[in-house]
Amino acid sequence: MFNKEYERYKEFIESHLLDFLPEIDRQSETLYESIKYSLTSGGKRIRPILLLAASEFCGCDINSSLPYAAAVEYIHTYSLIHDDLPCMDDDEMRRGRPTNHMVFGQNISILAGDGLLSAAFEIMIKDMLLYFDDPLKLKCRVRASYEIAKGAGCRGMVAGQVADIESQGRKCAKEYIEYIHLNKTAALIVSCIRAGAYLGCGDKDRLKALTDYGEAIGLGFQISDDLLDIYGDTETMGKCSGQDDARSKCTFPMVYGVEESKHKLKSLTDKATDIMEPFYDEGEFFTAVAKHLALRNK
Amino acid sequence: MFNKEYERYKEFIESHLLDFLPEIDRQSETLYESIKYSLTSGGKRIRPILLLAASEFCGCDINSSLPYAAAVEYIHTYSLIHDDLPCMDDDEMRRGRPTNHMVFGQNISILAGDGLLSAAFEIMIKDMLLYFDDPLKLKCRVRASYEIAKGAGCRGMVAGQVADIESQGRKCAKEYIEYIHLNKTAALIVSCIRAGAYLGCGDKDRLKALTDYGEAIGLGFQISDDLLDIYGDTETMGKCSGQDDARSKCTFPMVYGVEESKHKLKSLTDKATDIMEPFYDEGEFFTAVAKHLALRNK
Repeated sequence: MFNKEYERYKEFIESHLLDFLPEIDRQSETLYESIKYSLTSGGKRIRPILLLAASEFCGCDINSSLPYAAAVEYIHTYSLIHDDLPCMDDDEMRRGRPTNHMVFGQNISILAGDGLLSAAFEIMIKDMLLYFDDPLKLKCRVRASYEIAKGAGCRGMVAGQVADIESQGRKCAKEYIEYIHLNKTAALIVSCIRAGAYLGCGDKDRLKALTDYGEAIGLGFQISDDLLDIYGDTETMGKCSGQDDARSKCTFPMVYGVEESKHKLKSLTDKATDIMEPFYDEGEFFTAVAKHLALRNK
Repeated sequence: MFNKEYERYKEFIESHLLDFLPEIDRQSETLYESIKYSLTSGGKRIRPILLLAASEFCGCDINSSLPYAAAVEYIHTYSLIHDDLPCMDDDEMRRGRPTNHMVFGQNISILAGDGLLSAAFEIMIKDMLLYFDDPLKLKCRVRASYEIAKGAGCRGMVAGQVADIESQGRKCAKEYIEYIHLNKTAALIVSCIRAGAYLGCGDKDRLKALTDYGEAIGLGFQISDDLLDIYGDTETMGKCSGQDDARSKCTFPMVYGVEESKHKLKSLTDKATDIMEPFYDEGEFFTAVAKHLALRNK
């Protein structure tokens, strides 16, 4: 049941992901190819799926939240492209394929990332133009976009990336690793979920529940990523395991130890499922996502 | 008179430019320092000034268009940071100071650029939240943001940058160099001016005049940049002249010759001033800007 639901969202988003790319001139075919290469290279699509699910949970038709789902996947994709660059994580493979800069060169990769980030906002703002006759829905869209802007930017993902870089080779305090994880990963995930809630003009109770749920799975997601980097199988993951250690990056297991990290992941997953339980059937997809993310092997 | 007016706008934008930076956590001081370094390194501030002037020309108080002026300067600044990177133009100096990556390293520079671009949209969308009780002004703001998103992204500046990179070492057709210039430089300048007009909820005549004016000076601006790269004085410009030639970049003088380029610049400047003439005193600042940009030495 969960898998079917997950695949329904995933197919929906994947079949429309390129529809939202601003029409790029023939003169800039390279830009288009580079962006398309990374947008179509698979992945879990967890961020747009959570956005769609949250918007449905709050009464919004997924067709009308689709532009925002595409926008967050564009933002996630840009962050991966930039993150893979030689001066950043220097990754040559992602999802079993050469990384963007290995195919298109660093300069085009940087611009493809910049283009994706710009496109994400262009998509959301363009969507607002459609709701000029419906002030309530227009406001919901502005709020949703603001959530995403905050989660992606200097108070969210970008701040987390900087902290992550600065952690390399340093002994990390517990407070610091939580700061990194909350910003690098959890911030955008929480934003996706809150944006979905706003798109559905959800009531305060649902927004609160989804926010708390998002924070729990967002942090859990990064902890399970750190654990996978130790125990994951390179082939299954489509990228090399053991990379964090090689880069002397500050990770959860490094600061808390493996057992404590597993324990923390479990308690965050339990917390997430507890939060969504009062919504019975309606919350089922979210509890299943939480369990799935904790147990994933890639 | 022109200089006094220009300085008034310039001081206004410069004294408020950092006010709009999303409050960055103490943990990400490096991000803040890197962003601040580039935002406060001077420059002509021509884009935000044109936005403020256009908004005033269309009846909007500059205090209420300030967030958008800041946003476009953030976008321009991010583009310079990324453009200076070793894998792009590989510039070590800008405006008489070491470029961002020379001070903070490439990884932080890329993220500072990403942070600035995200912040630009965060600023504009945050501003929309203030106009929930004024649907007309809210719509004007959505339209202004959309103009800026288009000018900055895959149908504007980013497309131009990609074309610029691809032009290196190639023999350029006239059509191609115009495509590069229109996108790399003119697109964002036109967007700034149109955004200003929207912020003032300007009438169609004024929007049309400003758009045509913007296209003329935007293209002229890049031609004068190309000419400066040949004849400019390294010290006055704060960056090395002769760079385009060293990189075998495709420039206007290379395709059209120097004399023809000067002629083209003059006719674009004349066109810009002709467009604004029917507005008498109100259009004076714009005609003066056009002349100033054509005659500048940095």
